Amino acid sequence: MTPYDFICLKREGKSNDPDDIKRFVQEYVDGSVADYQVSAWLMAVCFNGLNEEELTAYTEALIESGERFDLSSIPGFTVDKHSTGGVGDKASLVLAPLVAACGVIVPMISGRGLGHTGGTLDKLASIPGFRTDLTAEEFKRYLREIGVAMMGQTPCLCPADGRIYALRDVTATVESIPLIAASISAKKIAEGTDGLVLDVKVGNGAFMTDEQSAELLAREIISITNRFNVKTTSILSDMNQPLGRAVGNALEVAEAIECLRGKGPADLRQLVLELAAQMLVLAGWTDADKARADAERALDSGKATGKFRDMVTMQGGDARIADDLSLLPQARFKIPVRAVESGIIQNIDTYRIGILGGQLGAGRRRKDDRIDPAVGFEIARKTADEVEKGEVLALVHANDESAGLRIAEELRKCFELGEEKMLPHPLIVKKVG
Amino acid sequence: MTPYDFICLKREGKSNDPDDIKRFVQEYVDGSVADYQVSAWLMAVCFNGLNEEELTAYTEALIESGERFDLSSIPGFTVDKHSTGGVGDKASLVLAPLVAACGVIVPMISGRGLGHTGGTLDKLASIPGFRTDLTAEEFKRYLREIGVAMMGQTPCLCPADGRIYALRDVTATVESIPLIAASISAKKIAEGTDGLVLDVKVGNGAFMTDEQSAELLAREIISITNRFNVKTTSILSDMNQPLGRAVGNALEVAEAIECLRGKGPADLRQLVLELAAQMLVLAGWTDADKARADAERALDSGKATGKFRDMVTMQGGDARIADDLSLLPQARFKIPVRAVESGIIQNIDTYRIGILGGQLGAGRRRKDDRIDPAVGFEIARKTADEVEKGEVLALVHANDESAGLRIAEELRKCFELGEEKMLPHPLIVKKVG
Repeated sequence: MTPYDFICLKREGKSNDPDDIKRFVQEYVDGSVADYQVSAWLMAVCFNGLNEEELTAYTEALIESGERFDLSSIPGFTVDKHSTGGVGDKASLVLAPLVAACGVIVPMISGRGLGHTGGTLDKLASIPGFRTDLTAEEFKRYLREIGVAMMGQTPCLCPADGRIYALRDVTATVESIPLIAASISAKKIAEGTDGLVLDVKVGNGAFMTDEQSAELLAREIISITNRFNVKTTSILSDMNQPLGRAVGNALEVAEAIECLRGKGPADLRQLVLELAAQMLVLAGWTDADKARADAERALDSGKATGKFRDMVTMQGGDARIADDLSLLPQARFKIPVRAVESGIIQNIDTYRIGILGGQLGAGRRRKDDRIDPAVGFEIARKTADEVEKGEVLALVHANDESAGLRIAEELRKCFELGEEKMLPHPLIVKKVG
Repeated sequence: MTPYDFICLKREGKSNDPDDIKRFVQEYVDGSVADYQVSAWLMAVCFNGLNEEELTAYTEALIESGERFDLSSIPGFTVDKHSTGGVGDKASLVLAPLVAACGVIVPMISGRGLGHTGGTLDKLASIPGFRTDLTAEEFKRYLREIGVAMMGQTPCLCPADGRIYALRDVTATVESIPLIAASISAKKIAEGTDGLVLDVKVGNGAFMTDEQSAELLAREIISITNRFNVKTTSILSDMNQPLGRAVGNALEVAEAIECLRGKGPADLRQLVLELAAQMLVLAGWTDADKARADAERALDSGKATGKFRDMVTMQGGDARIADDLSLLPQARFKIPVRAVESGIIQNIDTYRIGILGGQLGAGRRRKDDRIDPAVGFEIARKTADEVEKGEVLALVHANDESAGLRIAEELRKCFELGEEKMLPHPLIVKKVG
C-alpha cells in the first residue's frame, strides 16, 4: 500500500489496516514518508477518527519508534499520574512525594508548558539545582532507593510522537481526541508504569472545554492503556478557574510545599487527596476511604514533606526550600489587581490568565524562549466570591515593573463581575473508569 | 492570521478570509508556509469545501502566482476547449484546427497524460518534429497568423497550481471538486482565452464516475470562469468506454486525422461536432444548428484538414502525415484480442484499459517515464455489441511481443460479456450552462 492509498482510505472514511499504520509511522521516522503526507493523514483523522484497532496500532507504532523503560526490576507497584494540562495545576509536585511516602513507587515523566498551560518540568526547574534530565539508569536507581523520581520526556521514548506532535502543532491537527489519547497513552506505556491515574481538565482553561469531550478522551486513554496492561482510572476536574492560588513556576512550587505541609488552598488539597486515593487504590488499597485517610495523614504528619526533601536532594536540588520558601526565586515587584466595582465573580477567563502568565515570562511563546521562574500571579478571589470595590483580586509578581503594570490591567479584565449569586464550581466533575 | 489559525478555521468548517487565502498561497510560493501546512489545509478543504468567495480568492491566488497571457492584440474571439480526461479522447486534435477553420481563434494549452488518462501533449509529440514548447510570443504569433496554436503548460502560468497539484498528487487530496475546479479555471483564465467549452467526462474511465459530481464540477468551473469574464459552457460526455477506437498516441493522431477528413468513428465525430458547435456559439454564431452544419462542412470539405496541415507545419511538424498515416510511428506487433465466448458486451472497464495502455508504454507511471508513441490499442467492439466466440474485440499494437501478449490477455478481461440485451451508452450525457 502506497502512502497515497493509505491517506486516501482514511479520507474516504474507511479504516486503515493495523500493519499499514505501523509501516506509515515507521516510514515517517525513516524519512520515506514525508511531513506533508503525515499532516494530510492527521487532518483526515481529525475528521474521520480512528477505531479501536487503528488506535491500538497507532499507539503501538509510537511506542515501537523508541525504547521502553523496563521497571520490572523495581519491587512494588508503580503508579504515575497524568494531567491534560491547565492553569495553576501543581498537583504532580505534591502527589509524587505524597504517594511515594505511602509506600507506592511513583515514576513520573513530565512535560514542559504547552500553549497557555504550565508544565511540571518548568516548575521543577525553579528549584535551585534540581535536575530533570535524568538517564534511564538514574531514574530507575532513584525509584529503587526512595520510591519516586520525576524526569523530563527523553528523546528515546516515543520519538515518533515527538515528531508528530511538532507537526500537529503547526498544522492545526492537535485537537483530535484519538490523536491526543494515543500520544498520552504511548508515552505512559513506554515509561513502563503499572498504573496510571488520569486528571482530565475540563473548562475554559483546559484543552477540553466541554465535559463530553473530556470524558471521551478519558475513556479512550483508559481503553488504550488497558490493552497494554496499564491499569488506568480517571477523573475529570474543573478548570474554569486556576487551581489553587499560584500561577507561575516558583510560586507554584511554594504552594505545592504548603500543601505538602498540610496547608495551602483547599481546592488543591482536595484534588491531591482525590488523585492520591485513586493512585493508592490502583496500587492495592482495597478501601478508597482508607487510602484517602492515609494520604491525608502523610500530608499532615510531615511524611510527604520528608519524601519531597529526599527527592529534591536525590535529584541535585536544594532541599532547604521545603522549610524556607524564601530560597525560591522571588520577583522584585508585587502589583495588586483591584476590583473597580463591587460584585460577585461570575466567571474567570482562565485561558487568558494562562496566556498573560506566558507574556509575563512564566511560559514560552516559542520553543526556545527562556522562562523567568519568579514571575506569575497570586489569584486571591475565585468564582462566586463577593468582592468590594478596591479589594485585591490578584497579585502580579513581576521583574519588569512596566510589563507587570500592563499585565495587571489585562488580568483585571479576566474577572467578570456581576450581580448574580453564584455557586462555586464543583472541583471534581466526575470519575471515569 | 498565522498559518495555524488559517488551517484551524477551515478544519472547524468556518470560512477563510479571501485575503488570508491569497496570503497563504503567496507565502507557500515564497517558502514561509510549509508543504505540510498546505497539505493539511487541502485535506480540510476536501472535507469542508470552499464557498464561492473562497473559491474565487483561491483561483485568483493561483493566477497571481504567475504571468497572464494577454491575447488582446489578437483580433477576434478566442475559444479553448478543456476535457477533464479520459481514455482515447483525441477530440482536441480535431477541434483546434476545425474551429480555427471556421474562423475562430483557438489558443489551446494542453497537459500531459495523468494517471490512467492520455494527454493531448503526448499525442502531439508523436507527430514527427511537432513542437509544443512554444514561447508566449510564438504562441501569439501563430494565433495571429493561422488562428490556432497548441502548446504545453508553461511554468510561468500559475506556478502555484503546479506546486499544489504535485502536493495533492501525493497526499490524496486530488479528488476535491472545488480544488479541481480552481486548478482548471486558473490555468484557462491565465491563458487569456475569451471563451471556454468544457467536456466533463463521466463514467468508469473518468475521474468523475457519477453524473452528479461531474455536473457539480462543470457548474463550479462555469461559475468561477464567468467571474473572471471567461464565457464558459459545458457538456458531460460518456466515458464508460474509450472514445473512438484508438487508444495510444500515434494511433489517436491517425484517428483524429481520419475524423478531420470527414471519416473515422461515429462517436468521435459526434462529440467533435457537438463541442465545435458550442465553441462557435460562444464565438458569436447565433444558431447552434448553423454552427454544427458549418463545422460539419469544414470536416467534409477538407478545410479542417488544411488548417491541421498549417498548424503542424507552423509548429515544426511533418504535415505530410495528414495525407500519409504511414509516416506516423508504427508498432512492430499487432496482437488480436479475441472473445472466448459469444455474447453481448455488458461493460468495458475503461479505467483498466487506460492503466494497461500505460503498462504497454503509451503512458507514464512516473513523471520521467518515456512514452512509446507507437503502442496502444484499437478497440474494435463497444458496449451493447454482439460478438461471436473468436471474434476480434481489440488489437494490441506493441513493440515488445511478450509484453504485448501479456497485456492482450489482460485487455480481454476488460470486456464483460453476458446474455442481456444492452442499449449503447448515450455519448452526450447532458449540457450544462
